[in-house]
Amino acid sequence: MPVVMFHDALASPDAWRDGLAARIPELDFRVWPDIGDPGEIEFAMVWNLPPGSYAGMTGLRCICSLGQGVDHLFLDPDLPRDVPIMRLVDPWMSQSMTEWILLNLLYFHRQGPEYDALVRQHRWHVLPPPETSECRVGIMGLGALGLHAARAISGLGFPTAGWARTARTVDGVEVYSGNGQLTDFLARTDVLCCLLPLTAATRGIINTDTLALLPRGTFVINAARGAHIVDEDLLAALDSGQVAGAALDVFHTEPLPPEHAYWAHPAVRVWPHVSAQTNPATALEQVAAAIRRVADGRIPENLVDPTLGY
Amino acid sequence: MPVVMFHDALASPDAWRDGLAARIPELDFRVWPDIGDPGEIEFAMVWNLPPGSYAGMTGLRCICSLGQGVDHLFLDPDLPRDVPIMRLVDPWMSQSMTEWILLNLLYFHRQGPEYDALVRQHRWHVLPPPETSECRVGIMGLGALGLHAARAISGLGFPTAGWARTARTVDGVEVYSGNGQLTDFLARTDVLCCLLPLTAATRGIINTDTLALLPRGTFVINAARGAHIVDEDLLAALDSGQVAGAALDVFHTEPLPPEHAYWAHPAVRVWPHVSAQTNPATALEQVAAAIRRVADGRIPENLVDPTLGY
Repeated sequence: MPVVMFHDALASPDAWRDGLAARIPELDFRVWPDIGDPGEIEFAMVWNLPPGSYAGMTGLRCICSLGQGVDHLFLDPDLPRDVPIMRLVDPWMSQSMTEWILLNLLYFHRQGPEYDALVRQHRWHVLPPPETSECRVGIMGLGALGLHAARAISGLGFPTAGWARTARTVDGVEVYSGNGQLTDFLARTDVLCCLLPLTAATRGIINTDTLALLPRGTFVINAARGAHIVDEDLLAALDSGQVAGAALDVFHTEPLPPEHAYWAHPAVRVWPHVSAQTNPATALEQVAAAIRRVADGRIPENLVDPTLGY
Repeated sequence: MPVVMFHDALASPDAWRDGLAARIPELDFRVWPDIGDPGEIEFAMVWNLPPGSYAGMTGLRCICSLGQGVDHLFLDPDLPRDVPIMRLVDPWMSQSMTEWILLNLLYFHRQGPEYDALVRQHRWHVLPPPETSECRVGIMGLGALGLHAARAISGLGFPTAGWARTARTVDGVEVYSGNGQLTDFLARTDVLCCLLPLTAATRGIINTDTLALLPRGTFVINAARGAHIVDEDLLAALDSGQVAGAALDVFHTEPLPPEHAYWAHPAVRVWPHVSAQTNPATALEQVAAAIRRVADGRIPENLVDPTLGY
């Protein structure tokens, strides 16, 4: 009888409890903090678990992040170092993310900000047609999400490049890798999409220095983590015209505080972290499979490398 | 020496003149109304030529519409009946149209209107995740533009259907045909995209009767012709909630008059006929080929059937 602990302050446990019970009837599903004897917990499904909560979980065999990002786990200095960490890699979330990226990319490419401003004034004015073959999209991060988005964008005819930690080959996508090629990647990018994992190496990677390497008038799309961006630097680049617009789904503090400058900035489109919402209906099968593996003494799939932080 | 006449009140002839001269140096390019002897004109490239202007063009061998639609030609009761009519079928325009359709589809699907309204109030509020596999898109018209859009939409995972005059098979697209299947097509459509040619049979096809056949809360996207829609009927359906929102690129009168109700309607997104702008750079090769064919006494490609009106 596997014992599972659940914590996600923003989501109800019901869909997970019911869905897992349908797949593993003998499952003992406990919702933090009412978890009984912590020593009995074998599998922890968590999102933003308060630091220190793993105390006493001496039988823990897997920590599963309830999202594709795992940076929230590493905020806890007491995260058990010897327990495998897995994350959701859900085709539904990849599709959802690609849709959101495409929506914001096409909005910028098809002069949405300009046309919206004209329409607000009831003005009919035709701008020169945008040229897809000249709109160079750059994806930072070529994990499950970045690859899926890059392929879709390339398939629509946009010259598409990706930047990743290590070199690789992706059909239809020009891959730049490592810090040595970041400058060249940025210099050829008209629409920058951030889908990086948040690690010590990527925190604050979108800042005055990197923004200055982009061609003037670039658009920035961030669906990764708020901390990838130095907010003051992006706001300064927007105000100077170095960056023409930004679509942001993630923020240093969420919910984005009401007084934050992003809300009212005319060149910023704020979204409330909905680019790829975790969906129990599509992720349940994967979590159930991981619980069965762990119960059988095996290693789950989609493990995180704690030394890389993703 | 082929003699060509050009008329497009909204576009400069320069790109066409220069581009054709580069391909057919001996071309005699004349801009209406300064066309000299009308009896010398062999090839007419036109957009919204004033009715009656073909008088005296006794040597005309081809009329080329400077757009994918040809309905503007048939507004002229004196259109020569014995002259072949061709239209542009430009892959660049298909791509441009598909981008515009995707942008507006994704905006509706990803709850753009709701999130935009929340952001205007600086409110962070997460709606239930939209489900692509339950968002049924219906394309009216499966010509070059409709097919291209339908394939891209289906490729993104939307259940996609098309409605055409005649039955056919399209991979990944459920095809309905003829008036007999229009009711079934509308009943299964959550986002309706109009890409029909404008003919006597399709004028006013989006009206109170057809809108009532859609599921409540459908979105309407029109990138075909304004006259496909009975404006008062669509406005009434928007106000009753039968239609949740509309993205409109084409109108009965263009530019859309400043007093028109669409401009200020909160559920209508107005665009100034830019979904697929005619692009000399990509269409020139096709027009030059047609002029050469006509000069050789042959029939150009992409001919229109005047009895069907498209």
